[in-house]
Amino acid sequence: MISNPNDPALRSWAPSSPDSDFPIQNLPFGLSSRIGEDKPFAASRIGDQVIDLASLDALGAFSGIDLPADIFTQKDINGLIALGKPTTRAVRQRLSEILCLDSAYIQLREHSTKWLIDIHSTHQYMPVSIGDYTDFYSSLEHATNVGSMFRDPSNPLLPNWKHIPVGYHGRSSSIRVSGHSFHRPYGQLKPQDGPPVYGPSKMVDFELEVGFIIGKSTEMGDQIPIQQAEDHIFGLVLFNDWSARDIQRWEYVPLGPFLGKNFASTMSPWIVTMDALEPFRAGGPKQDTPVLPYLETTGPKTYDIELDVFIQPEGGEPSRVCQSNFRYLYWNMCQQLAHHTVNGCNMQVGDLCASGTISGPTPESYGSMMELCWGGTKSVALADGSERKSIQDGDTVILRGTCRKNGVRIGFGDCSATTLPAKS
Amino acid sequence: MISNPNDPALRSWAPSSPDSDFPIQNLPFGLSSRIGEDKPFAASRIGDQVIDLASLDALGAFSGIDLPADIFTQKDINGLIALGKPTTRAVRQRLSEILCLDSAYIQLREHSTKWLIDIHSTHQYMPVSIGDYTDFYSSLEHATNVGSMFRDPSNPLLPNWKHIPVGYHGRSSSIRVSGHSFHRPYGQLKPQDGPPVYGPSKMVDFELEVGFIIGKSTEMGDQIPIQQAEDHIFGLVLFNDWSARDIQRWEYVPLGPFLGKNFASTMSPWIVTMDALEPFRAGGPKQDTPVLPYLETTGPKTYDIELDVFIQPEGGEPSRVCQSNFRYLYWNMCQQLAHHTVNGCNMQVGDLCASGTISGPTPESYGSMMELCWGGTKSVALADGSERKSIQDGDTVILRGTCRKNGVRIGFGDCSATTLPAKS
Repeated sequence: MISNPNDPALRSWAPSSPDSDFPIQNLPFGLSSRIGEDKPFAASRIGDQVIDLASLDALGAFSGIDLPADIFTQKDINGLIALGKPTTRAVRQRLSEILCLDSAYIQLREHSTKWLIDIHSTHQYMPVSIGDYTDFYSSLEHATNVGSMFRDPSNPLLPNWKHIPVGYHGRSSSIRVSGHSFHRPYGQLKPQDGPPVYGPSKMVDFELEVGFIIGKSTEMGDQIPIQQAEDHIFGLVLFNDWSARDIQRWEYVPLGPFLGKNFASTMSPWIVTMDALEPFRAGGPKQDTPVLPYLETTGPKTYDIELDVFIQPEGGEPSRVCQSNFRYLYWNMCQQLAHHTVNGCNMQVGDLCASGTISGPTPESYGSMMELCWGGTKSVALADGSERKSIQDGDTVILRGTCRKNGVRIGFGDCSATTLPAKS
Repeated sequence: MISNPNDPALRSWAPSSPDSDFPIQNLPFGLSSRIGEDKPFAASRIGDQVIDLASLDALGAFSGIDLPADIFTQKDINGLIALGKPTTRAVRQRLSEILCLDSAYIQLREHSTKWLIDIHSTHQYMPVSIGDYTDFYSSLEHATNVGSMFRDPSNPLLPNWKHIPVGYHGRSSSIRVSGHSFHRPYGQLKPQDGPPVYGPSKMVDFELEVGFIIGKSTEMGDQIPIQQAEDHIFGLVLFNDWSARDIQRWEYVPLGPFLGKNFASTMSPWIVTMDALEPFRAGGPKQDTPVLPYLETTGPKTYDIELDVFIQPEGGEPSRVCQSNFRYLYWNMCQQLAHHTVNGCNMQVGDLCASGTISGPTPESYGSMMELCWGGTKSVALADGSERKSIQDGDTVILRGTCRKNGVRIGFGDCSATTLPAKS
C-alpha cells in the first residue's frame, strides 16, 4: 500500500521540531555539499537535517525508480527535474516511506549517518542553473501603490494591467542562493534639478516575491495551454528581487528596469514541490475584468503561503516589517505561464518565473520598503529603536514563507541576504 | 618571425573568392559539425570551407599553445573563449600561419582534407551558450524615430537617453543561429477601440543589430572600467531582434518589451574577433551631451561595418531594404559594458550584448520596417513588384555585415531567418 506523503498524520523517526519548515510532509529538493567538500549532491531536507540523495541512492534506496547513473551528483538538479514529475514524485514518495515512523526500510534507517547530515555541516548551492529569469508584476496592490505614488493616484493602473500578466526579463547571472551578501550598487542618480550624478544608491530596497521553477521544457513555437500549465511547474521558492529605487527611477523609461535590479537577487535554497503544496491550494482574488480565453482558469489556482519579511541590522535582532500572502496575487502562475508562452516563447527546465512584489490589501502587507514607507513619506521602526526608509549597510533581509493546515506546517527556509557598504 | 594575421598582403593557398566574407584576414570562431554527424567541433572558416579545429588539433597543429584536452569538442566554444585572448589569439595566429601561401606547415596542408570541409557539407550551431542576453538602445536615430512616431516629434528623446546607454534584458532561450525559421507569434493585440483580442501578430518586424560576445567573466560587485572594456569583448556577430510591433505596443508599459520580442532572435554563426576587426576601427558620432566620467572614452571606439538588410519572399530574390553602418551608433560598446557593470552586475563568458536597432541619418539606413515604413504610412518595394509594411509569411530576412579597407574585405556571413505562418 502506498501512503500519501502529504498525510497530516505522518510522523518521522528523524527529529523535526514542530516549528520546522521541513516536516516529513515537505521533502523539498535542493543541492548541497558537506562543508569543506565541494562535491554537490542533490538533496532533500527533514527538520534540521539534509538528506543526501546520492548516498541514499548508493545504498539502493531508489531501486525500482528509473534513474540515470550519477543523476544525484550533477552541478545542478536540472537533469533530475527534467526526468519528469512521475520520477521526482516517486523519489519524494520513497523518501517519505524511508523516513516515516513505521518505515519498512530498516537497513537504511540503521545507516542513516551515511545520508542524514546536520544542516550546520552542509553548504547549500543554487539548486538549478537558471537559463532565463522572468519577473512578473502580478500584485494588484503593488501595481496600484506604485501607480499611485509615481503616476496618478486617481488612475494608478495602466490600461493593459488587468488584461495581461505584465512581465519582463531579468538577469540570471546575479541570482544567488540565500546566505550571500552583496555590495551596495553604484549607478546614475538623478537629483531633482541638474544632471545625473554618479554614486552609491541611497535607496536599496527588497521585493518580497515567490518564484516558480520550470519543470518541463517546450520547443520554440509551442504554447503551454493554461489547463496544462501546472504540469510544467516543478515547485516554488522565495525570491528577493533587490532593487535600487533611485537608479531604477532614472533609467527605466522606456525599456524597463535594468541596473536598478540586476546587481543581485536572492533565492531560497529548497524548491518546495507542487505536490507538497497541494494541501494548501487556495483561490485568489476575483478578477473583475474579463480575460481572453487563453487566460481563463477555473478552480483554485494559487496557494495559501503566509509571507514575512524581516530586517536584521548588523549585530541586532530581526524585526518583522511585512506580513503578506502568496494568494493575494491577482494573476496566478497558470495565467503567467500561459501568457509567457502564448507567442511560442520556449521554456527550459530550471527557468525561473517570479511573481513580482507581493503586496496585500493592508499597509503592513506591502512587500517593499518603497510601499511600506510610501515613497519616503514615513519610516519603518525596528526592534532596536532605529528606523528605516530603505535598507542600510549591514542590514540582512530575511524572507520566510509558511503554509499551515490540519496541524501541518511546511515552509521554505530562509531567503536571506546582507547589504554590504559600496565598494570603495 | 610572426606575421600579422591582418596583413592585407596575406594570401592563402585555400581558395577564397574576392567577395567572400572569410579571407585569411578574418578567421572567425564558430561551432560546426559534418552533416549527418551530430558531433560539434570548434571551427573557423576560410572562403567556402569550414576549418575543423578539433581535427587540426589532433594533427598537432596547435603544439606550443596551452590548450586543455577536448577544448575543441565541447557543446559550445565558451570554454575556448574563457581561456583568454592570449590563447585564442595564438590559435588564430597559428591558423593564419598554416593557411598562408608560404606556410611552413606543409604536412598539414597535405592532409587538408582531414580538416577543411566544404561549407555545404557542414552544419553550424550556436557557437556560444548564452547565459544572459542584454539589448541596448544605442542608435540616436532609432530612438529619435521611435520617439517621433509614438511620443512627441518635437521632443522625441526621453531625458535619460544621452546620459545612459539605455538597455534591458532579453530572452536567451529563443536565440537561434542563422538559417532557422519560426512561426508568426500569437498574442494580445489592442484595436484602437475596444478590448484586446487574441490572434497572430500582423506586424512582424526585423531589427538590424550587432552583438558582442563577452570574453572574460567578472564577479558580482566588480565594475569593468571603460578603459578595460575592450579586453572583455571576444568578438562580434550580426543579430536580428525579431519584434512583433502590435504585441509590443500593448504590453510594453511600464516594464518594457516582453512577448513582442522573445518569440525569436537570430544570430550569425561566426564570431568575428576583435583582432580581425582592428583594421576597421573607426570613430563614432560626437556625443553632444557631457557624460559622467565612468562613460568617457577617448579615441576611436567603434568599427566601420557596412550593414545591409535583405527581404527575400518565398521563391523570390532578395531585395535590399536597408543600408546602415555599425559606426552610426551613438553609444559605443565600451560605454555599454562599463555602464552594464557600474552597479556590479556580473558578466559571464558567452553573454551577448546587442546594440539595439542600428539606424543611420538617412531614411534608407533605418534598421527596422517600423522606421522604413514610418509607422505604416509608406511601404517598401521589393524586386518582385510586391510591397511590404511588415514581414509576411514566407519572407526570409537576411542581415549582412562587411568591413572594407586597403583591399581587404571581411564579413560576418548571413544572419538569416524565415517567418512561417502562425501555427493553426
